[in-house]
Amino acid sequence: MATARIKGVLSPVVTPFKRDLSPDVGRFIAHCKWLLSQDCGLAVFGTNSEANSMAAEERMALLDAAVAAGVSPARMMPGTGACSIVEAAKVSAHATRLGVGGVLMLPPFYYKGVPEEGLFRFFSEVVQRVGDARLRVYLYHIPPVAAVPITHKLVERLLKAYPGQIAGMKDSSDDWPHTKSMIDAFAKDGFDVFSGNEKPLIENVKSGGAGCISATANINPGKIAETYRSWDKPDGAKLQSWINEVRGVMQGYVMIPALKYVIAHYGADASWTPVRPPLVETDDKTGRDMIAKLDALGFTMPGLRQAMAVAAE
Amino acid sequence: MATARIKGVLSPVVTPFKRDLSPDVGRFIAHCKWLLSQDCGLAVFGTNSEANSMAAEERMALLDAAVAAGVSPARMMPGTGACSIVEAAKVSAHATRLGVGGVLMLPPFYYKGVPEEGLFRFFSEVVQRVGDARLRVYLYHIPPVAAVPITHKLVERLLKAYPGQIAGMKDSSDDWPHTKSMIDAFAKDGFDVFSGNEKPLIENVKSGGAGCISATANINPGKIAETYRSWDKPDGAKLQSWINEVRGVMQGYVMIPALKYVIAHYGADASWTPVRPPLVETDDKTGRDMIAKLDALGFTMPGLRQAMAVAAE
Repeated sequence: MATARIKGVLSPVVTPFKRDLSPDVGRFIAHCKWLLSQDCGLAVFGTNSEANSMAAEERMALLDAAVAAGVSPARMMPGTGACSIVEAAKVSAHATRLGVGGVLMLPPFYYKGVPEEGLFRFFSEVVQRVGDARLRVYLYHIPPVAAVPITHKLVERLLKAYPGQIAGMKDSSDDWPHTKSMIDAFAKDGFDVFSGNEKPLIENVKSGGAGCISATANINPGKIAETYRSWDKPDGAKLQSWINEVRGVMQGYVMIPALKYVIAHYGADASWTPVRPPLVETDDKTGRDMIAKLDALGFTMPGLRQAMAVAAE
Repeated sequence: MATARIKGVLSPVVTPFKRDLSPDVGRFIAHCKWLLSQDCGLAVFGTNSEANSMAAEERMALLDAAVAAGVSPARMMPGTGACSIVEAAKVSAHATRLGVGGVLMLPPFYYKGVPEEGLFRFFSEVVQRVGDARLRVYLYHIPPVAAVPITHKLVERLLKAYPGQIAGMKDSSDDWPHTKSMIDAFAKDGFDVFSGNEKPLIENVKSGGAGCISATANINPGKIAETYRSWDKPDGAKLQSWINEVRGVMQGYVMIPALKYVIAHYGADASWTPVRPPLVETDDKTGRDMIAKLDALGFTMPGLRQAMAVAAE
């Protein structure tokens, strides 16, 4: 089965938690559907989803629930990386069987300074254990958090060994020249490079990249997706400039709780604020400051209030 | 039930894997029993155990198997930390029900730069979810790997909130003044501070610490335990000096595969060498170099060969 590759703008979907810290399935599905309505794909279980603060079983159950509720798996790129091959393979196989567009895979992130050969063996073993021709792996380079880089040499070896399975990467280095070097080296082989945020979005597309997977696409998906579609249009630069201003505001805060505060505010749904430890929710003074800055930019979240009203019922 | 606290020398027990990377239960149990025969406690599922390269279910099954085989749970301090509260609580509760002497708990190690309040909530939530008065938590400070520190202030808050459950810490900072500052601050409250290696062992005991939990106790348990028992005896300093020489040799290599190479060599059991990716086994040239240095120190592993012959049957 030849599936169209995922491209464009994806959101590492923030995961709503109830007061007892269990996943809020209804609000999760509502948020997924709202993001899709804004032309934004679903990189569920990413860094901004607090995925590693959930057990593998919780993530698999949420994915099942979303698909059962009609969220298209083809628009999803769930994070399935783990420190153990066993868990990474189990979760990746589960997602692949559901028909997801691809899986976003962290390197094993406990040990630091590990050899490239060890990382190659890790990903290789996971691909072989999944053993499913439909598997599409997007490598997740996020050195500020994982502290284990995905190097050019590693990409080259994996692409050579598994040309059908290694589909691309998310580069969260926040270093556009690094991202461009990955595009320049591997895009010609069908390797889709997503920027880890929207700041270089038009540059990414112009250079042959695949788009972006960005935290702030949780709150600003429509305009970021419009920027993606407008990359070669006259108003592209203006759109890029405005989405970067929104991003700039958000980067002044602790991102994950800040995103939830923004959703709670514009969605008129206070139930969105809980985060799992070790994160701590945004306090109201900080939150009001942030909202004032977003309001000043004319920021809105069209349709979110209605979407959340349905979830709260 | 009043249990004697674990003290002295513990080994973060290396986990043997078969060629297919599944845990080798027989050799694991044989190694546990050999370590106990050398007066060395069992910090199974630590950093050197490749614990985070195993799924929670694999770790729980190995613990069950060891206890079923007669390994005393009272001499065990399994690592039960995880990035998710759900997994940390599940594994900690399981170990506590088995009657372990304590659990060694990493902080959640995916997110970096998290607030102390978030770490406090994490450990607090785990203690509450376990909900077992027998739980004894040893906090695991290992900034070079976890990159999330356990601060004095965090220890103070946790001790105050859970005086019966927060039992001590392993300090793998490899910074004796830091370890001593923890002893000075909290030993008076019954907080047992283990050094993360044997280099400051006698200083640790003299200062009121509880001993050490050291990678190299996997291969040199008898002499390290003898040093612990000899802390106030005339030959203590000489013993300390010799175990430090052995440690010095091992620190010149990648520790986990090097430990397995040494066990394979002195145990005459080549099946010990596999490691799980992202680690890579020690190559023979490097291994021979290491063994020559150990031999030159008069290093031996008494009884290991017989112990491994039993496991191989």
